Amino acid sequence: MALIVHKYGGTSLGSIDRIKAVAERVHAARKTGDNIVVVVSAMSGETDRLLGLANELSEVPAPREIDVLLSTGEQVTIALLSIALKERGCDAISYTGGQVRILTDNAHNKARILDISGQHIKSNLAAGKVVVVAGFQGVDEEGNITTLGRGGSDTTAVALAAALKADECRIFTDVDGVYTADPRLVSRARRLDTITYEEMLELSSLGSKVLQIRSVEFAQKYRVKLRVLSSFEEGPGTLITEEDESMEEAIISGIAHNKDEAKLTIVGVPDKPGIAHSILGPIADANVEVDMIVQNVGADNLTDLTFTVHRNDYDKALAILKATCENMGAREVTGDISIVKISVVGIGMRSHAGVASKMFNALAKEGINIIMISTSEIKISVVVHEKYLELGVRTLHSEFGLEQES
Amino acid sequence: MALIVHKYGGTSLGSIDRIKAVAERVHAARKTGDNIVVVVSAMSGETDRLLGLANELSEVPAPREIDVLLSTGEQVTIALLSIALKERGCDAISYTGGQVRILTDNAHNKARILDISGQHIKSNLAAGKVVVVAGFQGVDEEGNITTLGRGGSDTTAVALAAALKADECRIFTDVDGVYTADPRLVSRARRLDTITYEEMLELSSLGSKVLQIRSVEFAQKYRVKLRVLSSFEEGPGTLITEEDESMEEAIISGIAHNKDEAKLTIVGVPDKPGIAHSILGPIADANVEVDMIVQNVGADNLTDLTFTVHRNDYDKALAILKATCENMGAREVTGDISIVKISVVGIGMRSHAGVASKMFNALAKEGINIIMISTSEIKISVVVHEKYLELGVRTLHSEFGLEQES
Repeated sequence: MALIVHKYGGTSLGSIDRIKAVAERVHAARKTGDNIVVVVSAMSGETDRLLGLANELSEVPAPREIDVLLSTGEQVTIALLSIALKERGCDAISYTGGQVRILTDNAHNKARILDISGQHIKSNLAAGKVVVVAGFQGVDEEGNITTLGRGGSDTTAVALAAALKADECRIFTDVDGVYTADPRLVSRARRLDTITYEEMLELSSLGSKVLQIRSVEFAQKYRVKLRVLSSFEEGPGTLITEEDESMEEAIISGIAHNKDEAKLTIVGVPDKPGIAHSILGPIADANVEVDMIVQNVGADNLTDLTFTVHRNDYDKALAILKATCENMGAREVTGDISIVKISVVGIGMRSHAGVASKMFNALAKEGINIIMISTSEIKISVVVHEKYLELGVRTLHSEFGLEQES
Repeated sequence: MALIVHKYGGTSLGSIDRIKAVAERVHAARKTGDNIVVVVSAMSGETDRLLGLANELSEVPAPREIDVLLSTGEQVTIALLSIALKERGCDAISYTGGQVRILTDNAHNKARILDISGQHIKSNLAAGKVVVVAGFQGVDEEGNITTLGRGGSDTTAVALAAALKADECRIFTDVDGVYTADPRLVSRARRLDTITYEEMLELSSLGSKVLQIRSVEFAQKYRVKLRVLSSFEEGPGTLITEEDESMEEAIISGIAHNKDEAKLTIVGVPDKPGIAHSILGPIADANVEVDMIVQNVGADNLTDLTFTVHRNDYDKALAILKATCENMGAREVTGDISIVKISVVGIGMRSHAGVASKMFNALAKEGINIIMISTSEIKISVVVHEKYLELGVRTLHSEFGLEQES
């Protein structure tokens, strides 16, 4: 008898009919004899509705009270799903994060899980019940309600699976798995049966929104088998797990892209030790996250530094960089929001040379100019003009042989 | 420096603007130097909305899960009111029933408070904060969320005032106090400055919906000074307290009425010991509450028994009574929903004879036929045809000299 953690997001629970459908699915899983723990998010739209009320009262509502407010969203769904399950003759019981007890630090709105007490859950499972747990929430040492931040329900599910030593953690979502590329761009993109944690982490960080990155890190750390699958149709989904020999022998698992970045360059900076810090320090101080960074030292001991930020932070970063430019006596600042990042990701590239040259060559053949390059052990990313997005992704998807066999 | 408990109901918190108005009022009270604890209900309509969702999933939703569901209503308002207070520069902190900890028995949907731990609240008050507490909810010994049933927020407020030894418990509502009669019926009805617990209990049980009866019992038991006042306008309201010598010397405090009852009669029952139980037992077993009961033994050792129930239960009670009638070999069953109950209430009647005869005489002079009579130490109730409601109430209001001086 296996122990399986299910997780359903807000879209899967967005109406009474969808809650009924989730109850059907959970009941069916329970009838196979498995023990089931279900982690749920708030009904879609509910979190925004509650935040809207708070924002009508204050532009900067107190973080502690926001957690008290938002945690009601999942509390409603655990009750409704438990009612729906019991109505079908599937015995069930609900638990809030505090009741479980999911202990977190006291960083309201972005708390981190410190410990999970599995006792209540285990005794209810032993009594044959499905246990329905509110995702996204916990309590700190003093009993204050905390939330893990948006998407935190995935993290709750994985952390629970780890604490309970579950056989698998199934994340039910609106896609039926992880694909070799975005199917909206590449019609012949293929669903992967398995993928490693490392690859999934790179895909998450590259803008593929299937899973929250923290939940994948957590799964990797505690070796929780994670499966992404559709809550609307049947199918095996994609299993995210450790690398093992039975895995597909592909060098490259997928082609990811990210349209949310913008590029900034500071040109003609007098080169001396510590300039990268002088330039990026003020950006970090303004809570702007920097992704790619490229520095070149040119002639005359002058250097250029280029980096990317989220498009939403572009104006803020540009203003800071212009001030830095004046202070440092640099020549000028330029920027560009019309860019995209395209990446090839694959654990196989660790042991295969030539992935980079094959990638650059394929893009060059299509006349696609590369603006920036950045590499990691299992990923190569390039920044190109946004007009090349579709062409670039399709070219690489085909070049690395990822197409569906048809 | 006094400690005052405020309680605001759902109507007073029914919109963002009303929450702001409550925050203003609480802040003003805090600025006088008093320590303030605020108990809140769910925003009006929210409890019904949540129950509606549950009922779409099940006709008989699990009581434990209903409590998990409904308790989110007050959790939303404690967060929003705290945010509104802090926005005004009035430091505040929210607590759910479980966080306080309001310990109850495990009778879901109608739990009773067993104990309140005041520690969190006291330390926050000492730190100068307004403490905002969710009404209507608590936790049982095992940490399950419970609710006190509808209107339970009044009980929470009084219980907190008792536990904290507060100087006064102020129930803010949509009326500005307790009146000598319903002002919609009697234009010259007068707001009472003070009234005793006993009188208020009779008024509550007679259908005056100003306060929940349990909260008055609680206040009497723990000698909590209770004040009813308007959340929409300024004014002293009505203080409900113990009888003392400085109180108004009125014999009668007010005229109450109840339009929600219906009358049932079983005629020609063979009289023997235990017949009242044989007749009313099946009614009680069906969870129908019986209010007035009158029995007369007539000729031939046959007896008639008449009682009143809530109009909503009339059809159910009638069917049960007809079955009982056949079983007992009684003559017939009759019923009437076109009745009202009118009562005179006053602690002064304990020491004044003649209130009853004055009352019956006044009604007779107006040609009002009395169908049933029932008395208690501080109350006399009559049942009359509903067409006499206004005339009866006005007649008695005038007869006992309750009019506003104009």
